[in-house]
Amino acid sequence: MNNKPSLLISFGGNALNVPDQVHYHQREEFEIARKSMQGVIALIEMGYDRMILTHGNGPQVGQIFLQQELTRDEFPRQITLDVCVADSQGRIGYLLQNVFDNLGKTKGLSKKAAAIITQVMVDSNDPAFERPTKPIGLYYDQPNAEKLMKERGWNMIEDAGRGFRRVVPSPKPLEIIEKDLFYDLLGQGFITIGGGGGGVPVTRSADGALSGVEAVIDKDHTSSLLATECDIDELIILTQIDHAYLNFNTEQSFPISNISSDKLEVYLNRGEFAEGSMKPKVEAALNFLKNGGKRAVIANLNDLIPAMEGKTGTQIL
Amino acid sequence: MNNKPSLLISFGGNALNVPDQVHYHQREEFEIARKSMQGVIALIEMGYDRMILTHGNGPQVGQIFLQQELTRDEFPRQITLDVCVADSQGRIGYLLQNVFDNLGKTKGLSKKAAAIITQVMVDSNDPAFERPTKPIGLYYDQPNAEKLMKERGWNMIEDAGRGFRRVVPSPKPLEIIEKDLFYDLLGQGFITIGGGGGGVPVTRSADGALSGVEAVIDKDHTSSLLATECDIDELIILTQIDHAYLNFNTEQSFPISNISSDKLEVYLNRGEFAEGSMKPKVEAALNFLKNGGKRAVIANLNDLIPAMEGKTGTQIL
Repeated sequence: MNNKPSLLISFGGNALNVPDQVHYHQREEFEIARKSMQGVIALIEMGYDRMILTHGNGPQVGQIFLQQELTRDEFPRQITLDVCVADSQGRIGYLLQNVFDNLGKTKGLSKKAAAIITQVMVDSNDPAFERPTKPIGLYYDQPNAEKLMKERGWNMIEDAGRGFRRVVPSPKPLEIIEKDLFYDLLGQGFITIGGGGGGVPVTRSADGALSGVEAVIDKDHTSSLLATECDIDELIILTQIDHAYLNFNTEQSFPISNISSDKLEVYLNRGEFAEGSMKPKVEAALNFLKNGGKRAVIANLNDLIPAMEGKTGTQIL
Repeated sequence: MNNKPSLLISFGGNALNVPDQVHYHQREEFEIARKSMQGVIALIEMGYDRMILTHGNGPQVGQIFLQQELTRDEFPRQITLDVCVADSQGRIGYLLQNVFDNLGKTKGLSKKAAAIITQVMVDSNDPAFERPTKPIGLYYDQPNAEKLMKERGWNMIEDAGRGFRRVVPSPKPLEIIEKDLFYDLLGQGFITIGGGGGGVPVTRSADGALSGVEAVIDKDHTSSLLATECDIDELIILTQIDHAYLNFNTEQSFPISNISSDKLEVYLNRGEFAEGSMKPKVEAALNFLKNGGKRAVIANLNDLIPAMEGKTGTQIL
């Protein structure tokens, strides 16, 4: 009955939130998630059975982290960023489980969703720890920035004219700690949800223990790794634009539709794709294919079904 | 090899946090959780195989909710209490998975933990919604309290001399929405963690959809229901005192050790146990036994092993 390949869908932040990055709107979020989950339900009705859903957490973890900073006087022993990510995974896990199961019920589906709190191992010697690049949280004036750098050991950079802001490292994901859990739940017929915000970053000490670190892992790299570790056939990365582009944001911009991974790698290496935006998506897709994946797609969030049918998006084979 | 009964352990807030209810201490929390998880590992080494761990979330959700209130100007569209509970489940799920797996590894265990975001259905006609009793969050002066009651529809009560405080309902749990997930993961050999803070309260609308509501469910009642729904043999409720007591806090106070459920029910009905403290624990234990459970125990957090061996705690048969 089921002859469809297994699939990992990586949802961008816009799949879950209104575009405004600062003001987090809870009830609207349920409505927006509903639209994304309708596509997932349609895929199930088309015969897709083994599916992992991963997701960003930008607006949510942004709010959670800002609230830590804003209540420093009341809660002097602020929670660290790994715990903020875990909070956001709980929040979004609840949201997606709830919305998926509600929609599934109206369609008479027996499938249920299972959200997994996901830790992702990174290397404490990853060069990213030497040069943190990912800005998070509030802007501070110089005296306060210096105080925070001293008191908390934060790295901060000056953003032209706007003040100082904390930066954290973005190390490469090496292992999904809960991969067995994903694998088992897929086998039990659950739609699994996880890898939220790229996962809670942890490093392994000499005795094997895992400890949270203050970093942010790219969610598409985590998605690619999770798909490989769970023997998933296909990866689709959903974002706000409809294709990867050559000469993006120029008059000669040109959408890439069907392409071989070799050719896409050439474009990647010649710097066609923007850092922190399309570049990590292309890298994640190529890594997935190198590690045995059968197809990778980069497409607009609203094109999930046509992109899975091969009708739109950047299709990499 | 395994002839031990299946078990649900309900951890009180003190299993996870320093006693101070307002100042949440993250790193200490990992240390405290380590002590609790050492007991769980010891039980596994004694042959216990199918285990569910549930937990309170008082200090965590308290901080999360207070931070919502304190940052109302910056985030006018505050997240609701169901989402605060989900955040706390993510936070504590990460904590317990991490600590359990780290400890298990040092002992060479192959068992892993799996934290489950747990929704719990309550009846929107539960009389608790008519008279909210559970105080949460900040104290406000009268003008601000009146403003919040009007703007947000909050129920607030005056606490002698300290001002006005929000109160929320504490309805009875009727169904654990993720019970199949617990059951399947137990079957796959995972130590399951969930029901955090009594679960995210949801009500079912006429079309079957579940929606979050602003309420707090008693965690021991949720634990009792979850144990019943997952065919668990034994329930142990861990708290700060070593037994249920007759004439508690008087000169005639007397610890209850071995007791039949019939006799304990007589004590319950004559008002021996304090509301919001020992009473819900005794009710939860009795409900579990009525619904087919084989043994229920109420004991001190530090007595997990001797209480499971029948050497201390209130043992109900």
